[in-house]
Amino acid sequence: MMSIEIFAPALPSIPWQERPAGSRETVWRYSGNPVIGRDATPTSNSVFNSAVVPFRDGFAGVFRADDRRRYMQLHTGFSKDGIDWELTPEPIRFLPECPSAGSFTQGYDPRVLWLEDRWYVIWCNCVNGPTIGLGYTFDFKEFHQLPNAFPPFNRNGVLFPRKIGGKYAMLNRPSDNGHTPFGDIFYCESPDLRHWGYHRHVMSATDGWQATKIGAGPIPIETSEGWLLFYHGVLTSCNGFVYSFGAALLDREEPWKVLARSKEYLLAPRELYECVGDVPNVTFPCAALCDAPTGRIALYYGCADSVTGLAFCRADEVIARLL
Amino acid sequence: MMSIEIFAPALPSIPWQERPAGSRETVWRYSGNPVIGRDATPTSNSVFNSAVVPFRDGFAGVFRADDRRRYMQLHTGFSKDGIDWELTPEPIRFLPECPSAGSFTQGYDPRVLWLEDRWYVIWCNCVNGPTIGLGYTFDFKEFHQLPNAFPPFNRNGVLFPRKIGGKYAMLNRPSDNGHTPFGDIFYCESPDLRHWGYHRHVMSATDGWQATKIGAGPIPIETSEGWLLFYHGVLTSCNGFVYSFGAALLDREEPWKVLARSKEYLLAPRELYECVGDVPNVTFPCAALCDAPTGRIALYYGCADSVTGLAFCRADEVIARLL
Amino acid sequence: MMSIEIFAPALPSIPWQERPAGSRETVWRYSGNPVIGRDATPTSNSVFNSAVVPFRDGFAGVFRADDRRRYMQLHTGFSKDGIDWELTPEPIRFLPECPSAGSFTQGYDPRVLWLEDRWYVIWCNCVNGPTIGLGYTFDFKEFHQLPNAFPPFNRNGVLFPRKIGGKYAMLNRPSDNGHTPFGDIFYCESPDLRHWGYHRHVMSATDGWQATKIGAGPIPIETSEGWLLFYHGVLTSCNGFVYSFGAALLDREEPWKVLARSKEYLLAPRELYECVGDVPNVTFPCAALCDAPTGRIALYYGCADSVTGLAFCRADEVIARLL
Amino acid sequence: MMSIEIFAPALPSIPWQERPAGSRETVWRYSGNPVIGRDATPTSNSVFNSAVVPFRDGFAGVFRADDRRRYMQLHTGFSKDGIDWELTPEPIRFLPECPSAGSFTQGYDPRVLWLEDRWYVIWCNCVNGPTIGLGYTFDFKEFHQLPNAFPPFNRNGVLFPRKIGGKYAMLNRPSDNGHTPFGDIFYCESPDLRHWGYHRHVMSATDGWQATKIGAGPIPIETSEGWLLFYHGVLTSCNGFVYSFGAALLDREEPWKVLARSKEYLLAPRELYECVGDVPNVTFPCAALCDAPTGRIALYYGCADSVTGLAFCRADEVIARLL
Amino acid sequence: MMSIEIFAPALPSIPWQERPAGSRETVWRYSGNPVIGRDATPTSNSVFNSAVVPFRDGFAGVFRADDRRRYMQLHTGFSKDGIDWELTPEPIRFLPECPSAGSFTQGYDPRVLWLEDRWYVIWCNCVNGPTIGLGYTFDFKEFHQLPNAFPPFNRNGVLFPRKIGGKYAMLNRPSDNGHTPFGDIFYCESPDLRHWGYHRHVMSATDGWQATKIGAGPIPIETSEGWLLFYHGVLTSCNGFVYSFGAALLDREEPWKVLARSKEYLLAPRELYECVGDVPNVTFPCAALCDAPTGRIALYYGCADSVTGLAFCRADEVIARLL
Amino acid sequence: MMSIEIFAPALPSIPWQERPAGSRETVWRYSGNPVIGRDATPTSNSVFNSAVVPFRDGFAGVFRADDRRRYMQLHTGFSKDGIDWELTPEPIRFLPECPSAGSFTQGYDPRVLWLEDRWYVIWCNCVNGPTIGLGYTFDFKEFHQLPNAFPPFNRNGVLFPRKIGGKYAMLNRPSDNGHTPFGDIFYCESPDLRHWGYHRHVMSATDGWQATKIGAGPIPIETSEGWLLFYHGVLTSCNGFVYSFGAALLDREEPWKVLARSKEYLLAPRELYECVGDVPNVTFPCAALCDAPTGRIALYYGCADSVTGLAFCRADEVIARLL
Repeated sequence: MMSIEIFAPALPSIPWQERPAGSRETVWRYSGNPVIGRDATPTSNSVFNSAVVPFRDGFAGVFRADDRRRYMQLHTGFSKDGIDWELTPEPIRFLPECPSAGSFTQGYDPRVLWLEDRWYVIWCNCVNGPTIGLGYTFDFKEFHQLPNAFPPFNRNGVLFPRKIGGKYAMLNRPSDNGHTPFGDIFYCESPDLRHWGYHRHVMSATDGWQATKIGAGPIPIETSEGWLLFYHGVLTSCNGFVYSFGAALLDREEPWKVLARSKEYLLAPRELYECVGDVPNVTFPCAALCDAPTGRIALYYGCADSVTGLAFCRADEVIARLL
Repeated sequence: MMSIEIFAPALPSIPWQERPAGSRETVWRYSGNPVIGRDATPTSNSVFNSAVVPFRDGFAGVFRADDRRRYMQLHTGFSKDGIDWELTPEPIRFLPECPSAGSFTQGYDPRVLWLEDRWYVIWCNCVNGPTIGLGYTFDFKEFHQLPNAFPPFNRNGVLFPRKIGGKYAMLNRPSDNGHTPFGDIFYCESPDLRHWGYHRHVMSATDGWQATKIGAGPIPIETSEGWLLFYHGVLTSCNGFVYSFGAALLDREEPWKVLARSKEYLLAPRELYECVGDVPNVTFPCAALCDAPTGRIALYYGCADSVTGLAFCRADEVIARLL
Repeated sequence: MMSIEIFAPALPSIPWQERPAGSRETVWRYSGNPVIGRDATPTSNSVFNSAVVPFRDGFAGVFRADDRRRYMQLHTGFSKDGIDWELTPEPIRFLPECPSAGSFTQGYDPRVLWLEDRWYVIWCNCVNGPTIGLGYTFDFKEFHQLPNAFPPFNRNGVLFPRKIGGKYAMLNRPSDNGHTPFGDIFYCESPDLRHWGYHRHVMSATDGWQATKIGAGPIPIETSEGWLLFYHGVLTSCNGFVYSFGAALLDREEPWKVLARSKEYLLAPRELYECVGDVPNVTFPCAALCDAPTGRIALYYGCADSVTGLAFCRADEVIARLL
Repeated sequence: MMSIEIFAPALPSIPWQERPAGSRETVWRYSGNPVIGRDATPTSNSVFNSAVVPFRDGFAGVFRADDRRRYMQLHTGFSKDGIDWELTPEPIRFLPECPSAGSFTQGYDPRVLWLEDRWYVIWCNCVNGPTIGLGYTFDFKEFHQLPNAFPPFNRNGVLFPRKIGGKYAMLNRPSDNGHTPFGDIFYCESPDLRHWGYHRHVMSATDGWQATKIGAGPIPIETSEGWLLFYHGVLTSCNGFVYSFGAALLDREEPWKVLARSKEYLLAPRELYECVGDVPNVTFPCAALCDAPTGRIALYYGCADSVTGLAFCRADEVIARLL
Repeated sequence: MMSIEIFAPALPSIPWQERPAGSRETVWRYSGNPVIGRDATPTSNSVFNSAVVPFRDGFAGVFRADDRRRYMQLHTGFSKDGIDWELTPEPIRFLPECPSAGSFTQGYDPRVLWLEDRWYVIWCNCVNGPTIGLGYTFDFKEFHQLPNAFPPFNRNGVLFPRKIGGKYAMLNRPSDNGHTPFGDIFYCESPDLRHWGYHRHVMSATDGWQATKIGAGPIPIETSEGWLLFYHGVLTSCNGFVYSFGAALLDREEPWKVLARSKEYLLAPRELYECVGDVPNVTFPCAALCDAPTGRIALYYGCADSVTGLAFCRADEVIARLL
Repeated sequence: MMSIEIFAPALPSIPWQERPAGSRETVWRYSGNPVIGRDATPTSNSVFNSAVVPFRDGFAGVFRADDRRRYMQLHTGFSKDGIDWELTPEPIRFLPECPSAGSFTQGYDPRVLWLEDRWYVIWCNCVNGPTIGLGYTFDFKEFHQLPNAFPPFNRNGVLFPRKIGGKYAMLNRPSDNGHTPFGDIFYCESPDLRHWGYHRHVMSATDGWQATKIGAGPIPIETSEGWLLFYHGVLTSCNGFVYSFGAALLDREEPWKVLARSKEYLLAPRELYECVGDVPNVTFPCAALCDAPTGRIALYYGCADSVTGLAFCRADEVIARLL
């Protein structure tokens, strides 16, 4: 395989399972899927589209747990091995910096990352329509909320794990106020994570599995070949949306320039827990743990908007397929 | 638990199974679900959204059995124990009192109740658009049809089991002529079950699992706390409707006044037979057998518009969750 | 012409203008149209779809006057000659018999008639969705409101001017909660104007100018040939609805039986005041004054949802065209 | 059973399995379904809606294999027994006779037949919108493409296996450019398979399982009673399309005349592999192998737009149910 | 101006009016517009989108005259000067060559041309959905109808006035069954005007005034620079479609090749009779009379789907703007 | 009248005409409307929704002039008296500061204001969907373009004429990518006009004339009572959108707080040039010239997306109606 450098820490203890014998898949599923079921909290209807990071001697995460009112809430969770997770029964209560410019009622599809000196959470925040919510924590106990990044309607906000060109950088997906039937990925910059500008178009929905809309997935992984971005794509069948995912490589200093992009999906709904649930036919990645020395990646992805799955791949293989 | 009086007969022989050990559910499923399969009649495609009552030394019911033309028909059925059901192969042929004001071609989602001196059936009757059909029987053999209660379009008509304020009383759900994307519950009165008026708004679709529309389910159960009404609610995901159900308490003498109402659903599609079928993700209750002395309730609910499931709860626990 | 008897009082002073020389029209417009403009009250945005009756030594009416909030209100109005109208600046305030079953917030498209001992008003009443509102007055000063006739959604309720088969009788048009793209005319009965039943289908939208939906217009006129009913029909062009009107003859004792019906419209939008306004291309009749001895009919119709027009015809000519 | 003559060759080696004991089904499933899975080629996402014919000492076919871009491609495949299939990894590359009037980018839902001197393939060809593509092969290795039969939008083109009235004959289903919510079957003629005319309406979508649209399935089978045509029908539930199939008998010399037609479907989605997949609730037949002496028919049908199923019936029984 | 040869007869007596002083328009309106009003026949609602040709010592035409049922009918009409027209009160009754493959119930938007030995009419024919109807006459008295050219859904069929490549040639616009929100122009060929094939894409809707759909207008005019085709384009505003028109040059022997095409429209709705009527904001050309020696062109175009307008231009100026 | 202070310069030479005798209108039209017609540039199709400011010894403006391709362009224009305007034939060519984050292809609905040291232009900029474009000029000759303020989709961006709370401030209206059927007004802040944040909801669409969506109009006028904001509102009739306008008062230091708001519209489409044109029934204000000493305001508003109208009012009267 090609020699690729990954600019990220070593994470030797991330979950890992070798590719099954005989499989030709670039991304393969964990045999014990789903790793998190519907009942991970006492009041949860479903747990999916969630984000995990290495934390202390194990892992922590921010989880989308829709409750039995079907309200979308975020919960913390902790794990020793990244597979067995304990979710906090109470949802996160964010302390807003400026309540009139961003507070929390419902929110979903979080991503989490370490940036400079703390853990940031970025999610789809629902106030007067979905937009991008931002917050941070130092300890996964107390969470502070920044003002929303944009006016509605936006989803799938994803921060880069370092400043680019001297500014914080974000991918996002402009939307409408419903089950948006379109959607491209955009890029923007901020000097302070509170004011955003220099919006640039990154990539469009095209055809096939990514014909209707696309959206950034986990926090991008910096490599010598560019930012490795997993992203979901949606195809509209006569019976609804199908969410698959692929990957792209973005320029390291001008990430709105796409160097390479999946033609074939890497993973699409096929297993019963991906095809049957509150929203059939959804595989939606929100987190990627990468062990830089080995290039092993553990992907956490929501399944049928009901449960959480785990899949594996190697950074060099994914990049080789793109190039 | 609270002390609640239930104004209904003792029905000690209704189906019953205790809550599984470890379960926190207020409503739990019968372990042998589904209790009625697709092939309950020689020509049936599916049997669901059906109503049962105690009858003689066992139980009788009116069942929605879509045939293999996919025409919606009503059939009688009989059971000794409420679990093993024998459906009559031939659909019910109603004898209309006034054919130009109400006859039967197709009909669905029946409810059945004892009212004064006979068994009444109320269902969604399809003539020039769906509206509320009414009929009665003394023996579950010969069925008489009254004029339709309203002009189209209406569904989920549910009669109260006694007169209120000196008049017959009905809940109903105004609709449109398709897969209605809205819907509140209304109340109305009749001196004679043939003319209806004094329409009052009862409750609206709100949010979460009941955001799109709601509709009354089984015949309300009169208790000292109010009428216990199970009702379904619909959430619209990007891949279609999801039907869950909860409960409400209505004022005993002015039932258009809602005393309490579920925030969390009581049961939502989760089992394979609820998530997969002619209409995925439907749980739709149409009948509740209640044993007044113990408060045991056996709920019959349609699953995925394909088969019939059974679930259990206790009146006092359900009411306690509402209050 | 044929000899037709009209069962209605003599009204020799209704507005009248002979058919213009050279015209072949069965229904012809008043040369001074529109007779009522947008500014008939100090706060009105538009005055249209309104109903007039002979009253004392002149005429009175109930007028739809949308105000500059664009709220739909009903106002009384009075005229000596049926052409020059004085509208009351303040909208009608109805005194509801049972507020929870029918009160007034907004309402539109009234019809007015003398029935037994008083003037009845019937209109589209907006509470939890449009439905049929009913009220009465003895003096066009104090108005009483009865409970709504149906649950939502219904429009174009029209009462017959006498009991039929011993009961009050109404035409109505089931609808949905928006700009309904379908609609047939139904018939129903009431012993007391408060409870309604025996709903029967009268006639459907068909094709051409009446392809999308139809609705009863003025109070039917009883003739020896049947009830003469003017009704509007809607055609959907690529740029919206077009409202024209025609006529039908209904059986005198079983009015749900259609004896004859227009193939050609009688009047369709053509004049600038009918084609340009708040809703382009609308001609919508709500009142017909008929002088029985001569068969002269003065039709009041809304124009472009903005102003009120007047047109003329003779009952015998209209009926001759239908038969 | 009735005595029916089938005008087709003997095919004693087609797949066959007797009706299961106790079954009342006219069409029954193969116990080893699905016979072709998603991974039949190294790059396939799904294999379904495909056509097979007897070929040399076994069987050959043209298969719809959507790849992991979710591009719709056609592949050849070969089998000794009609059950175990080997698909060619590379998609068919058609050699167009007139590239500007018909070339191949994507195509789907092929049917295959022997006509005069060669194997013809007919499919939905995607260039400037879906229309009917035509091609032929002598050896299932080299494929030639004829000009498209129509301007867009058309699907479900099916050729008759002999000339009728001296001309080639085709069934087809006019469509729109999306997930068409309507659709009737038409008939047309050609002197040369390149120019088409004399379009006639054959049959309409009606109600029940075939309420939304219908489309011809496998190549019609000529019998003494008429052309036996299996066709699919679509019902629109609140959660999407449901594809079932039935059969019709068409006049042998004027096939636009329908002699008989299913009221009940013959097979509808019920098994997990029919209800769960890329498009839930689809059973879509594209090929029927018939052994004339015995009347045995092996039907190949796409399941949930994901895999390929096999079902069996007897021509005489199917025809008996229609008549 | 450039020197352009026009391959058409001299028609010195076509209507003509010079460009108004000060006007910069390439196409300018006749000062006496509209030339044909709504009442051109005793039963007409509107007369528009119609075709005229030189005939004997004057002009003849086939006119779309919607009647007061709003049924779309075709009528003949005759004129000495092309401006004052006398329409035949009775609609054309076509004698079908093969009734099951093409008869007349309703039809619209005719074009007329001289081809070889007779006058052909081509229009949108409504039987089981709109498609292309064809017919011919020798005398504008007796009309014969050929089979429809395609299965539904198609509109704006336009024949070329000579064979191209040895075959009859037609432009057409595939559609859906409603107010189609898309539409490109296609080309096809026929050996006999009864069978059609070799369908090729000509040009697409693009942006601006022609963003939603386009359709060929009058019979193309052959010039030394190519076929001069006037065509309409549709823009979708928030209040509906706006129909403007421009022109294109098509290759003389391979007319599916576009040599040049309007960026700016040539004429768009602006006058009251174009902006107000049964369909506001429509200018729709169906006929162009061209005097070859002078290059003068008289264009007949439908206005607001209500009346017929006349406009003028010079072939060389139009072509100069395209090149 | 109340005593109100206006914080703006004296502009004694703005256009002015007293309220017509007998009129009760708070806002009245200029008798010479429209002031700018469709043909204000040699290539314009329409000129509307445009912004003017006092400039040197007269007035300058940025005008939306859709050309005859129906491309939306911005042009400068100059006038001595604010009534007779000379538009520059060539559209403005903006010099982008950062082309990948904001360049000009098409743009519309500009507003113009003096802010600190230059003239700013803010408009709906079309690149990968509509969003807010920003630019500036010192001389109305050379225009510089800043990066777009947001990712798509947004319209009706309006800057405040001074910093508020130390930051630049903007109103805007989040949208979707079509003829958006919803829309509220939001507020946001920027330290540098290049990065925006602290998004706050200001006011929602409510009912009546402003039921569907609302959007800020001219640059707000600072008064002692608060910011006087004219804004448009949209009502959806069965035949499309109707654009009227009213006014609101916003808190001077926290402008996301609404102090008062129109219930009745101030002006709605009524004149022929407002009701007939490329988009019927639009009145859309984009500029307000205010003479502080007298409180006279001249409002420029687009009419039917075709021409430009002028209307007048007095600040104190408008504010008095709000309070």
